[in-house]
Amino acid sequence: MAPNQFLINGKKSLGLNPFDRGLAFGDGVFRTIKIQNGVPKFWKFHYEILSHDAKSIQIDIPSSRILLNDIKKLFSEPGNFVGKFIITRGVSARGYQFKNNIKCTRILLKNKFIPVKNEMVKKGVCLQVCKQKISENSTLAGIKHLNRLENVLAKTELQEKNFDGILLDSHGYVNECISSTIIIRVGSTLYVPNQNRAGVSGVTKRIIIDNAEVMGYKVKIKKISLDDLMKSDEVVIANSIIGAIPIRKISNKKWKPCKLAYDINKIFKFI
Amino acid sequence: MAPNQFLINGKKSLGLNPFDRGLAFGDGVFRTIKIQNGVPKFWKFHYEILSHDAKSIQIDIPSSRILLNDIKKLFSEPGNFVGKFIITRGVSARGYQFKNNIKCTRILLKNKFIPVKNEMVKKGVCLQVCKQKISENSTLAGIKHLNRLENVLAKTELQEKNFDGILLDSHGYVNECISSTIIIRVGSTLYVPNQNRAGVSGVTKRIIIDNAEVMGYKVKIKKISLDDLMKSDEVVIANSIIGAIPIRKISNKKWKPCKLAYDINKIFKFI
Repeated sequence: MAPNQFLINGKKSLGLNPFDRGLAFGDGVFRTIKIQNGVPKFWKFHYEILSHDAKSIQIDIPSSRILLNDIKKLFSEPGNFVGKFIITRGVSARGYQFKNNIKCTRILLKNKFIPVKNEMVKKGVCLQVCKQKISENSTLAGIKHLNRLENVLAKTELQEKNFDGILLDSHGYVNECISSTIIIRVGSTLYVPNQNRAGVSGVTKRIIIDNAEVMGYKVKIKKISLDDLMKSDEVVIANSIIGAIPIRKISNKKWKPCKLAYDINKIFKFI
Repeated sequence: MAPNQFLINGKKSLGLNPFDRGLAFGDGVFRTIKIQNGVPKFWKFHYEILSHDAKSIQIDIPSSRILLNDIKKLFSEPGNFVGKFIITRGVSARGYQFKNNIKCTRILLKNKFIPVKNEMVKKGVCLQVCKQKISENSTLAGIKHLNRLENVLAKTELQEKNFDGILLDSHGYVNECISSTIIIRVGSTLYVPNQNRAGVSGVTKRIIIDNAEVMGYKVKIKKISLDDLMKSDEVVIANSIIGAIPIRKISNKKWKPCKLAYDINKIFKFI
């Protein structure tokens, strides 16, 4: 794969206009999508959530057809890749204001797909609790926008032995991991962190909630304390690139891999 | 002035690599600088604060000499302009992690300078209190980083009759305005909002604090409630492009323009 392959507004380009508000303010949204032989996995969900997120910050995004055409163009070779769509509000003069008729910029980036090792999915991975908190803002909560400096700083804390880091909100509740959603099981109930005030509400979380009953679980969205997490029967992280992975250790607490990640991955396979 | 003039890493360029982390995560810092006949106003302070901000998020920035060379190159024509330096962490593969030897990207943008009307500086301008809050995060507080979606959303609320909008933190304290710092006077004391948990701590705030005594004022940094603000004797906003402007009205409360903005602008002239 040649390096730095991308399309801007559907075209090969030498680069992005640096007056773009995506750069200036993080004024945009994004999605990271697994592309299998040219086909974007979970596309229906990705587009629905992308539309919702963009609308929440008053950005009009292109139709699903236009975005799918971009994917077709950039991912014409066989194999697995990771596509990243960034939709910014567009280019404007200096200052936070923008015109009503501003046109969004759509950027599609082509990245390598590096599969998670089988062993990790079987035996589980370790997490650490990050010192870096995610800030609370009910207007932006749940949206996958381009203001992600907190995730970058949290990642700098991550020790190599740990696969991902748990992000707490400023009240100390478990919200998500740096790059994945986190779900706990107690008995036959799955608990999903309440993200009304912070965090990113993504595709895999949505699919897990929608399919909990099919998998034989009840599901509840609630504030999850670190104590709740540590006392749970099972912990799983998931995102749309890595799928679901069981957690075997957080700090000194250990879990035996159970079947939740397996159940979730089975659902992911058929969607 | 030709549109869209910029330098990337000191060179004319066709555009920014869209794999840059400035776009992906807002992983960078910026400064907006008045350029008068090729000379950047308040440069010493801008560079000091830029260095401090970048260091706070572990970005190594180029020397002052390199940045000044860029300014010389892009602003060779006479007249007043606004320069915007964006320093990002650089380009990396997908994901929040970055290599230790990553090289920052420096971007310099050339913008028109639109002076504030004399009448505004004489008679004062109006402000409104924004519904959009700024979120609290002590790691990022004070830093002029590229995560500015809250400011963008606050600006969409701003009614045309109001010059700027007051941003409150999630505890309801006055922090700053969307595009400027805010200072109040009670008797002979200037009160500057405590920005330990949110907001941008900029050049003009620094100069005002440093020179308060010279101007004949005491100065205190404190949590300022809306009630404190409304009961103050004088309110002024300032940034390094517009200078200081008196406030004549916030909601139904009116002030007569007094001499604080005049005093501050006199100091700005000699720095």
